[in-house]
Amino acid sequence: MRVLSGIQPTGRFHWGNFFGAIRQYIDLQHANEGYYFIADLHALTTVRDPQILRQNVRDAALDLLALGLDPAKATLFVQSHVPEVSELSWLLMTGTPMGLLERCHAYKEKKERGIKADAGLFTYPVLMAADILAYDSDMVPVGADQIQHIEVCRDLAGSFNHAYGETFVLPKAKVLEESAKVPGTDGQKMSKSYDNTLPLFGDTKAIRKQIMRITTDSRPMEDPKDPEGDHLFDLLRLVGSQADIDAMAETYRRGGFGYGEVKKAVAAASEEYFAAARQRRAELEQDVDYVDQVLRQGAEKARGKAADVLARAQRACGLR
Amino acid sequence: MRVLSGIQPTGRFHWGNFFGAIRQYIDLQHANEGYYFIADLHALTTVRDPQILRQNVRDAALDLLALGLDPAKATLFVQSHVPEVSELSWLLMTGTPMGLLERCHAYKEKKERGIKADAGLFTYPVLMAADILAYDSDMVPVGADQIQHIEVCRDLAGSFNHAYGETFVLPKAKVLEESAKVPGTDGQKMSKSYDNTLPLFGDTKAIRKQIMRITTDSRPMEDPKDPEGDHLFDLLRLVGSQADIDAMAETYRRGGFGYGEVKKAVAAASEEYFAAARQRRAELEQDVDYVDQVLRQGAEKARGKAADVLARAQRACGLR
Repeated sequence: MRVLSGIQPTGRFHWGNFFGAIRQYIDLQHANEGYYFIADLHALTTVRDPQILRQNVRDAALDLLALGLDPAKATLFVQSHVPEVSELSWLLMTGTPMGLLERCHAYKEKKERGIKADAGLFTYPVLMAADILAYDSDMVPVGADQIQHIEVCRDLAGSFNHAYGETFVLPKAKVLEESAKVPGTDGQKMSKSYDNTLPLFGDTKAIRKQIMRITTDSRPMEDPKDPEGDHLFDLLRLVGSQADIDAMAETYRRGGFGYGEVKKAVAAASEEYFAAARQRRAELEQDVDYVDQVLRQGAEKARGKAADVLARAQRACGLR
Repeated sequence: MRVLSGIQPTGRFHWGNFFGAIRQYIDLQHANEGYYFIADLHALTTVRDPQILRQNVRDAALDLLALGLDPAKATLFVQSHVPEVSELSWLLMTGTPMGLLERCHAYKEKKERGIKADAGLFTYPVLMAADILAYDSDMVPVGADQIQHIEVCRDLAGSFNHAYGETFVLPKAKVLEESAKVPGTDGQKMSKSYDNTLPLFGDTKAIRKQIMRITTDSRPMEDPKDPEGDHLFDLLRLVGSQADIDAMAETYRRGGFGYGEVKKAVAAASEEYFAAARQRRAELEQDVDYVDQVLRQGAEKARGKAADVLARAQRACGLR
């Protein structure tokens, strides 16, 4: 099965990105043919500083490789390195009803909040459909909020196939595990827009400080507490060993402990959990040529596939 | 000065296309660097039959070459053979305010008439801007109804330059001569949508019949008439020799002639006027390889230029 996933390079990845999505994508590389791209064209709709965009793309590549994306198993590439996707995007655009795009969440919400939208945000789902269809993707792992975009993609592919004959493979959405929801430093869902994220990489002391400052409640220390639904415990559950987790659950139920203790455990466990990835990232940072080569080879492979699909679509609609 | 012009391959060209636009574009090839493209990507928004689209593109190339477009002087190519234009289109899209596109005539009119529009029609001006900017075009000859699109192009290029530094050349519109308005067979402006066109190429007998059936008024034969503003006389003025035209003006003013006489004069003059082009077209039809070669070489040259401009834009916004 060919699995496609794109990730926007709009800043450094955090625990929420990793446990909620990246880790799940990477896991899929073992049993599937994975195509993973860094969506720099999509990022253009929000990142308008060229230096930041370049740095973000570079960081995304380093992060993904450090976190276990294996170029021997999966194809990693940068979206804009595959011109065929932009070409395909126009072919789909000519068959996209305005109403379909007007109903899409991201645009609708912005409009309803009175924010001035641009045509990039509005037509974003068409480019996304081209991203997916260009590689004959069978499966696209997405968060629940992205299911609509996969439906738009299926709609567009279906209309094209109907108008011009079988051309595109209709992809299926694979909804990511909700159980992997990650609490942020304020106890809410971790998200860049809430400014409550814990970074995956960076200075360990600084991250430890952030963990020590996580919001907690003011129940008396001695009270027994339910570990279920406690956000500190949820964080530990993501990074701790089973033994750590079981012991901490016991401590919660017994009571008579400080949250500082739990925070220290989370910090220690997370340092261990990400140690190998940090080590790997530090090495990759020293080996720019290797990273460039991975992206170049990834783009070559992706272009080979996309060129086939584009040629098929061009023949179908009479451009060739 | 670099002149760019695109023509949509939405059917066979008629006198209106020729005198109103094509002849004027072709004239510009002598004193300028001309880039002329057959806009197959734009045609996709209306031509949904692949065989017809292929045939239209082929006919457009034959027609243009037969009518005097000289590949030694100008660059003739097919729009979709230059992928860089589609790539550039997305870069512009991310900086296109929705309001700009909502105000564009073609979309607005369709919407107001209650016709279901698609995103291709809506975003058409962005692709058109990419067409123009991709070649650092200085001048774009357009009909009065297309001036808005050049303004959109200048807007988008200006915003991009403002956001990312000088990247694009801002083109100027060159408004085509209004004097070249061509009356159709019903006396109204010749236009495919009025079904009143006279074809440039095709069976001369059939065309002669169409000319003989042109609508006329019922003033008595013997009346003197003013040649100015008479649609038959206007047609003769397009294709007749100066001597023919002067003699016919004299006849009008004197009176005592039948419109059939004028029609015969128009038919005879037009056959002579287009004789060389018809001959040339017949030869080109026998030389498919030559036409393919012209389009291939044109695309190569156009891609060379477009690749430079795209690279400049990609560096500016941080994709490279």
